[in-house]
Amino acid sequence: MAEILIMKAVNAENEVHAAAVRLILEHAGIRMVNFLSSPGAGKTTLLEKTLTALSNRFRIGVIEGDLFTDEDARRIERTGAPVVQLNTEGSCHLTAAMIEAALSRLPLSAMDFLFVENVGNLVCPASFRLGEHQRVTLLSVAEGNDKVKKYPKAFHTADCLLLTKIDMLELTDFSLAQAEQDFRRVNAMAPVLSLSARTGEGLTTWFDLLAGWR
Amino acid sequence: MAEILIMKAVNAENEVHAAAVRLILEHAGIRMVNFLSSPGAGKTTLLEKTLTALSNRFRIGVIEGDLFTDEDARRIERTGAPVVQLNTEGSCHLTAAMIEAALSRLPLSAMDFLFVENVGNLVCPASFRLGEHQRVTLLSVAEGNDKVKKYPKAFHTADCLLLTKIDMLELTDFSLAQAEQDFRRVNAMAPVLSLSARTGEGLTTWFDLLAGWR
Repeated sequence: MAEILIMKAVNAENEVHAAAVRLILEHAGIRMVNFLSSPGAGKTTLLEKTLTALSNRFRIGVIEGDLFTDEDARRIERTGAPVVQLNTEGSCHLTAAMIEAALSRLPLSAMDFLFVENVGNLVCPASFRLGEHQRVTLLSVAEGNDKVKKYPKAFHTADCLLLTKIDMLELTDFSLAQAEQDFRRVNAMAPVLSLSARTGEGLTTWFDLLAGWR
Repeated sequence: MAEILIMKAVNAENEVHAAAVRLILEHAGIRMVNFLSSPGAGKTTLLEKTLTALSNRFRIGVIEGDLFTDEDARRIERTGAPVVQLNTEGSCHLTAAMIEAALSRLPLSAMDFLFVENVGNLVCPASFRLGEHQRVTLLSVAEGNDKVKKYPKAFHTADCLLLTKIDMLELTDFSLAQAEQDFRRVNAMAPVLSLSARTGEGLTTWFDLLAGWR
């Protein structure tokens, strides 16, 4: 019971910072997209491909969330996008206060989008709004077909579901149709896309969806 | 700062229950193994194969940790092993108190091993000892080569690293050698095995290691 009360207090504090983040973004005319998934579902690779493909259409800044390392930020930096690394030092999700602090390190007046790559974790980040306009949840086909049912909050709160690594599909018993059916039980509206950042399959549809959010 | 203090208080409480769990297990002569990984690294499938293969050598009970569902417990039940489902109702890891409560539902006097499948999460479960004798961390080759560096605690505290889904290796840029090298930076002693529960490759070595813990 105590644990639940603590969680509520933390979330109330978080909501204040999420509202502040949203105000700053609205003022600067920036759309923020929060990317959630398990470790290894392909968030960073998808961001790399997206930044490269859309660099001539949009100015995109990135906040990278990790427990300790800055490997992902260095990968993103190579695309030429402005990037800030947030290290949670072991904590299992980003908070809106962390985002608020990171905004001051980004060229806000020269950005159309802000991508936030959350800590790889399908549980905790789902409970913390960061002030984002859209939340994108990734699920790799290598993770198996039961994940939507088992981690409903990350899917319930998504504005888009990306089924990733579909080039691996034939080595798994994953069913895209089943995943979409399970997703519809917790999320009536959000679009579902399948893609492979490795082969490029499905990426154009994803880029178009993203451009529409702008 | 407040968050860190809360974490310490929760952990101190957890240690009391972990000690109680260990006492009960020692009294009953049971070895407990705690399985940790990201969602979809293959914990349940590995347990299914292990329970089936070792059913004539050991009596193994199972505790399944999930946020909400009992799908995994039903899969385990089909192997004939006694199983208890623990639902954390959204919380991101099992605690020793949960294990202590579950022990009363298991036939302790007729068990050689207790397998605990933790919530799929490479972050939070690493900080909570459950009273286990051995902790096994799984990393699927589909998750990518940076995960040992990015989630060090789950690997630092492991008594064995299982690199899973190696039948997918050629569709990834994962390097088994690199993973082992990164693992050795945070864990000097624990054995590293590679396997595929799907093809059966490497399973015999895993069964032998497990039998040695008894």
